[in-house]
Amino acid sequence: MATVRIWTDEEVSNDALVRAVFDDIRSTRKSDFVNNFWRALANQPALLERTWASVKQVMIAPGALDPLTRELIYIAVSTANGCGYCIHSHTAAARAKGMTGEQHAELLAVIGMAAETNALAHALQVPVDPEFTPS
Amino acid sequence: MATVRIWTDEEVSNDALVRAVFDDIRSTRKSDFVNNFWRALANQPALLERTWASVKQVMIAPGALDPLTRELIYIAVSTANGCGYCIHSHTAAARAKGMTGEQHAELLAVIGMAAETNALAHALQVPVDPEFTPS
Amino acid sequence: MATVRIWTDEEVSNDALVRAVFDDIRSTRKSDFVNNFWRALANQPALLERTWASVKQVMIAPGALDPLTRELIYIAVSTANGCGYCIHSHTAAARAKGMTGEQHAELLAVIGMAAETNALAHALQVPVDPEFTPS
Amino acid sequence: MATVRIWTDEEVSNDALVRAVFDDIRSTRKSDFVNNFWRALANQPALLERTWASVKQVMIAPGALDPLTRELIYIAVSTANGCGYCIHSHTAAARAKGMTGEQHAELLAVIGMAAETNALAHALQVPVDPEFTPS
Amino acid sequence: MATVRIWTDEEVSNDALVRAVFDDIRSTRKSDFVNNFWRALANQPALLERTWASVKQVMIAPGALDPLTRELIYIAVSTANGCGYCIHSHTAAARAKGMTGEQHAELLAVIGMAAETNALAHALQVPVDPEFTPS
Amino acid sequence: MATVRIWTDEEVSNDALVRAVFDDIRSTRKSDFVNNFWRALANQPALLERTWASVKQVMIAPGALDPLTRELIYIAVSTANGCGYCIHSHTAAARAKGMTGEQHAELLAVIGMAAETNALAHALQVPVDPEFTPS
Repeated sequence: MATVRIWTDEEVSNDALVRAVFDDIRSTRKSDFVNNFWRALANQPALLERTWASVKQVMIAPGALDPLTRELIYIAVSTANGCGYCIHSHTAAARAKGMTGEQHAELLAVIGMAAETNALAHALQVPVDPEFTPS
Repeated sequence: MATVRIWTDEEVSNDALVRAVFDDIRSTRKSDFVNNFWRALANQPALLERTWASVKQVMIAPGALDPLTRELIYIAVSTANGCGYCIHSHTAAARAKGMTGEQHAELLAVIGMAAETNALAHALQVPVDPEFTPS
Repeated sequence: MATVRIWTDEEVSNDALVRAVFDDIRSTRKSDFVNNFWRALANQPALLERTWASVKQVMIAPGALDPLTRELIYIAVSTANGCGYCIHSHTAAARAKGMTGEQHAELLAVIGMAAETNALAHALQVPVDPEFTPS
Repeated sequence: MATVRIWTDEEVSNDALVRAVFDDIRSTRKSDFVNNFWRALANQPALLERTWASVKQVMIAPGALDPLTRELIYIAVSTANGCGYCIHSHTAAARAKGMTGEQHAELLAVIGMAAETNALAHALQVPVDPEFTPS
Repeated sequence: MATVRIWTDEEVSNDALVRAVFDDIRSTRKSDFVNNFWRALANQPALLERTWASVKQVMIAPGALDPLTRELIYIAVSTANGCGYCIHSHTAAARAKGMTGEQHAELLAVIGMAAETNALAHALQVPVDPEFTPS
Repeated sequence: MATVRIWTDEEVSNDALVRAVFDDIRSTRKSDFVNNFWRALANQPALLERTWASVKQVMIAPGALDPLTRELIYIAVSTANGCGYCIHSHTAAARAKGMTGEQHAELLAVIGMAAETNALAHALQVPVDPEFTPS
């Protein structure tokens, strides 16, 4: 259960700002389905609007990294943060963008290994090599 | 400063198992430079050997994700875990594998946004949509 | 499901130390409702007693920060740690202490922004400015 | 050391977008000092611009929470995330906004207690009480 | 719900590599029960095989730390990471290896205190004492 | 550098409550050395007093877990939280209580593996097996 109400489509249709954001989500994604994250944020329309604007710019607009790579990075962060909802929604998004089972397996392997070596580097308190300084 | 000694090349040369791993690191990477992470792990030769074997398999061997994408994922996990050493070493590795300034900027943008929306999803305790279940 | 038993009121009434703590929780909070956190801790009476004594002193006793501000700080930590139970119980507590929907929205905005800029500062490994040293 | 270059004032003055953001930081804060976080972000002008716009809106603009309370929440998140740079810069900011030694002491006490009880709730896997659902 | 399918015994029996790993899990643990973690990893047979080989070596093979101590360390890490599944499975494993209620209570107390003092050390940004350097 | 002043012995001697706590630290540990953590906490005498009382009870008083095991658990939590100061001070404490190089190596191996499997369990969102419920 959420700490706030999850807005239904009817509630959304009764709030002009929320409805405008939901309309943009639907047309940008070319899909009628709007997931619970946005329905929970609807309780805070200004935050909803700003968050969607950022997501659209960072995850969807053309850029130097292809959209699938961005989803993999997102899943990696969400896994390290233990955010179950985010892992679910972005694993689904990555699949929709073409992630194969083999790519998923490798993503998991890299995430697991990074977690392990992060822990070792923390426990050993390894000093940063001067060679890693940007020139 | 580390919680263990950072092995010098001379110390490495006096331990058969450690020397063998260091030789493989150098020949695999085609570089004489061996960074402090491995010099700290040298205090635990069995762990050193196993860790290098895993890193070689997960980060270097050919696979379904290209090597640069794997580095970006690794940086993402290390950032979420706040592992300074790992961020330094793998940002350097990503640059060596061709990461441009623009790609780095987008990597940061995705990591930052994932951190923000992870926090929002946690604070809202959003329930997972049934649409995200794998079939 | 919990990793330990959740004590019922009947079980509580059969253990003198646990009952004394529960009585104090009820009279301090002026409410009969005792939430599951304390019913789980009841399995370890000494830990229950010490934890309640600390919570009473830190969260409830008069001090330099008003009680609602303390709840907001508590929610912020719990969100960063991804502790669903704690987010639920302290969001409810903050509402009981008067948190408005607008304050909740701003709390979320600050938490989200802090998470994002924390990630950026980690990824960039920004050196601390000497101006930030306490004199 | 950072993973990117820390821009000097001279470098800033040679980039129109970066200079505009720095000018706004200086005039908004009524101070000539611009801390390293922004000098590191300068390597990614678009990210710099977007991040400053968000910080200005969330941390500085008038709102339902007073500015000092927002700083305390920010410190709480940064502490849970172990972001040393952020803890330094926002502890300084909180002091500049009037945080007393007693308030700092209580902030630490709440953060420490939240961390402890978060850990206990995680270890016990306490189920959420139905009483905590928003109506 | 998982982000991947949880394999049934029938599915396991139809994949030679997965079946071999499951057979080894069963014979090593002298139990027919194979928990969901392995059934989820079965979707990535190579990762399954490597993960089981590591778990067997690190958690089960004779070593300098007795098996129960290793489980307590494992629970401590999982609690700090907020991994509910891991806390459940390893609390059960620790009980199976003889953890008493009193030991569980002390484990919780140490984990809680470490979380609290970690937060205080982070918030205070305490500099490392030179006395803690290994000689 | 710290976010607060690190108290010298002279400053400690001028505050009755702080001096009393430091005297107890010295006599309990049978050592004149008092590390920076306590010198930083001295800025908040009430928090100093309460924290030392808890540490003394949880880490030093006789109990169901031997003192070295408690230090290993403490290091595990601190590593997962990335608390450099805590890893340094408690690795030193564990060594003083007899931790051997082999035990340290195994501690690292368990911590690293737990971090890896925590990440895998998070990424897979493995559902808890009913067999893990306490009866």
